Amino acid sequence: MSFSDELGSLDISSLTRCYHTGNLSLAQVVEAIFERIEMRGADGIWTYLLPKEKVLRRVSDLEHIAPSARRNLPLWGIPFSVKDCIDIAGIPTTCACPSFKYIAANTNPAVMQLLEAGAIIIGKTNLDQFATGLVGIRTGYDVPHNPFVEDYITGGSSSGAAPSVATGLVSFAIGSDTGGSGRIPAGFNNVVGLKPTRGLLSANHMVDACKSIDCVSIFALTVADVWKVMQVAKGYDPENPFSRREADPPVGFDTYQEGKKFRFGVPAKEHREFFGNRDVEDLFTQAIETFIDIGGTCIEIDYKPFVEVNNLLFNGPWIAERYASVGSFIEANPQEIHPIVRDIILAAKLLTAVEVFEGQYHLATLQKAIQPVWEQIDVLIVPTAGTAYRITEIESSPLRLNANLGYYTNFVNLLDLTALAVPNGFQQNGMPSGVTLIGLPYTEPYLTGLGTTFHCRRVDKLGATLFGFPSAT
Amino acid sequence: MSFSDELGSLDISSLTRCYHTGNLSLAQVVEAIFERIEMRGADGIWTYLLPKEKVLRRVSDLEHIAPSARRNLPLWGIPFSVKDCIDIAGIPTTCACPSFKYIAANTNPAVMQLLEAGAIIIGKTNLDQFATGLVGIRTGYDVPHNPFVEDYITGGSSSGAAPSVATGLVSFAIGSDTGGSGRIPAGFNNVVGLKPTRGLLSANHMVDACKSIDCVSIFALTVADVWKVMQVAKGYDPENPFSRREADPPVGFDTYQEGKKFRFGVPAKEHREFFGNRDVEDLFTQAIETFIDIGGTCIEIDYKPFVEVNNLLFNGPWIAERYASVGSFIEANPQEIHPIVRDIILAAKLLTAVEVFEGQYHLATLQKAIQPVWEQIDVLIVPTAGTAYRITEIESSPLRLNANLGYYTNFVNLLDLTALAVPNGFQQNGMPSGVTLIGLPYTEPYLTGLGTTFHCRRVDKLGATLFGFPSAT
Repeated sequence: MSFSDELGSLDISSLTRCYHTGNLSLAQVVEAIFERIEMRGADGIWTYLLPKEKVLRRVSDLEHIAPSARRNLPLWGIPFSVKDCIDIAGIPTTCACPSFKYIAANTNPAVMQLLEAGAIIIGKTNLDQFATGLVGIRTGYDVPHNPFVEDYITGGSSSGAAPSVATGLVSFAIGSDTGGSGRIPAGFNNVVGLKPTRGLLSANHMVDACKSIDCVSIFALTVADVWKVMQVAKGYDPENPFSRREADPPVGFDTYQEGKKFRFGVPAKEHREFFGNRDVEDLFTQAIETFIDIGGTCIEIDYKPFVEVNNLLFNGPWIAERYASVGSFIEANPQEIHPIVRDIILAAKLLTAVEVFEGQYHLATLQKAIQPVWEQIDVLIVPTAGTAYRITEIESSPLRLNANLGYYTNFVNLLDLTALAVPNGFQQNGMPSGVTLIGLPYTEPYLTGLGTTFHCRRVDKLGATLFGFPSAT
Repeated sequence: MSFSDELGSLDISSLTRCYHTGNLSLAQVVEAIFERIEMRGADGIWTYLLPKEKVLRRVSDLEHIAPSARRNLPLWGIPFSVKDCIDIAGIPTTCACPSFKYIAANTNPAVMQLLEAGAIIIGKTNLDQFATGLVGIRTGYDVPHNPFVEDYITGGSSSGAAPSVATGLVSFAIGSDTGGSGRIPAGFNNVVGLKPTRGLLSANHMVDACKSIDCVSIFALTVADVWKVMQVAKGYDPENPFSRREADPPVGFDTYQEGKKFRFGVPAKEHREFFGNRDVEDLFTQAIETFIDIGGTCIEIDYKPFVEVNNLLFNGPWIAERYASVGSFIEANPQEIHPIVRDIILAAKLLTAVEVFEGQYHLATLQKAIQPVWEQIDVLIVPTAGTAYRITEIESSPLRLNANLGYYTNFVNLLDLTALAVPNGFQQNGMPSGVTLIGLPYTEPYLTGLGTTFHCRRVDKLGATLFGFPSAT
């Protein structure tokens, strides 16, 4: 995974510093990125790469901006990728289903704001078709292989986004997250994944999975980077029915100061699931110790109602939102669709209106039951995934193992929570593991502060790169 | 409608003053109420009356409370009625469908709080079966006749609640409001109807119409009285999935001071519908003049998106909530159900899950479109109903006229607004008319202040009683 080029870490602050000092030019970075991509060959990360010439024209445009004006462009020259369920005007959207391809007429507003801040798109990334899956192998393109242990999955549905960051091809990646797609791949690629508060980043101009809860998400090498990208990408969108105006964080969550005491919940021991993986279990125990070391009080909580919410997401009526989004295409082109994705989405056709309302009542009841937990804790800490799987394991048990992967992720959007997946060290086989910090909506300032403190205590290598944390500027 | 007894106005402050001065005893009030009820005969207001002896035992219990302790009982000795879709432990709930009858095991928490505050239940009131209708004639009991013009409807679905107050049988009535059931009957009975913010009063232990948006509502002779009752009845209920903790009113809406300037929206002239009724149209024009007189600036708004929301409520998927609530009873007992109610609810069985989500997307889109209106106005003022109908008119065109009645009411709960229906004077035929003040959630302190000022400027007779406003205490 190491590169012969002279390009250093692509984390935003390192790259920005190189631009400032003149150590690197935008064109050098783009050339090196395309070299790295070429070296990697058919790695399953990309569904579409922008022609290098086009990217270099963008570089030229950015270089023509006066240095004084660049100060207003917080992402000037920063390369990024976009998950291929999100539209960028003039280039194809496929949702990892080649025959679904259309040339997008519009650009998703969050992506548009990143471009207006000076960022450079490199390409569109692979996913579980129609963002349906947490495994990353349900694609009409090549299956991406894990950059740490080749026969393992990268995780899904943002299966190309996370490794595009981990392997040093971009500084950050835009993904999406309905039931964990912005966190599971972060965990399996040793990168940070932020699933922002629902509605904070516009989900307009993308192919909906579950339109009422979908979130645009962010992958990067450091917590500081996902935070920086979020500041640029967020914004109220009157055109999107589920966009929300940013609210103030709850009292006490507008910042995190290192050393400050806090209360963190973890699933009660008897509710933790590692599916036999002792390494991830040990790593999670170590994570708890780290959180205690930095001022946390650990509180075991009843995780059963969270598991009930998980079951609602994929066994309940929300699947019908996927049918509402792409059902008619799937009906018309059943042969073109990954059979598992097809079967999941077509099954939703039989669900009734009454079942939706009953599911929504069930969810509201669980929300009420869970609410008091948030009076006992400031943040909920869970393993990002209880274990990791080989591609062949997923192939032989695609539904059960997919459900296992969602054990710590599915409930988050249905409960209107925000989540930050952070690296948590490596298994003995070399596969990374992660923890996810989960909080009430709009607590990103707090979660990212705490996540930053945790991250650098747990790992010293960013993604699958050769680099560690950038020195403070 | 006048009574020979010595009982004065039953508005809460008059009655409380009589108790304080010793001019009336609780037993005298209860005796007089039962006399009035007997005098009226089969008036269709009641589905169940408590035995007088039982009510007198309650009176005796209340009288045994020491006068010093009564001060903590803000509704000590105040008689009220409860709409018969709301449970009171030990007495029947029928939803106006005699064969649906069951003896309730529990008491709705809002009603329970009223009892704990010293109020006295007289009986359960009639309604459109399963709270499905705005007309008040879809009942398995006698059809209530309007107390002002006998061949007119009382309005529904709270068809017994409003006249129980208007005719001086109780001080206040508990109703419910999904699409206007707490406002339309207020308008047709010259009483005040408060449809509180969704979730502010617990809707537990009642037969749901549309569980996700149903509200327990309040009818009384004055705005001060509905406000007083709301203070007692409100409260967070962890047992009810749609209960909400009371939030602070938006800035500026925590109070209304007479003389303060305000901006009120009214539907643009071309969007107003009076269905040919010039009297109600003239009365609404006078209402606008009154609001201008008391400091308001009138702003005509685009009412079309509100009408689109109306259409969603009764032509969209929310009808499936009614099937979820009572569908299996109706399937098993089709002959026992009012045919119009039966046909409406059974039709919902065919609705699909996809249609629900598409309806919810449509609603979210309309909410976004309507949101900017609330930056231009403080309160929206609409006629409570565009016209009033005779019982025979409803019989010959039950669906179309029902929809006409909802033109100014249906959207309110779907848009999470709060509403106060206030009397607005009389048509030439003697039928009352009303206006409804509509505001953002939790603006009840403001709406009731403004409503109080408006009410006493527009009418001087409370309900169908012989009495006017109580003198200030």
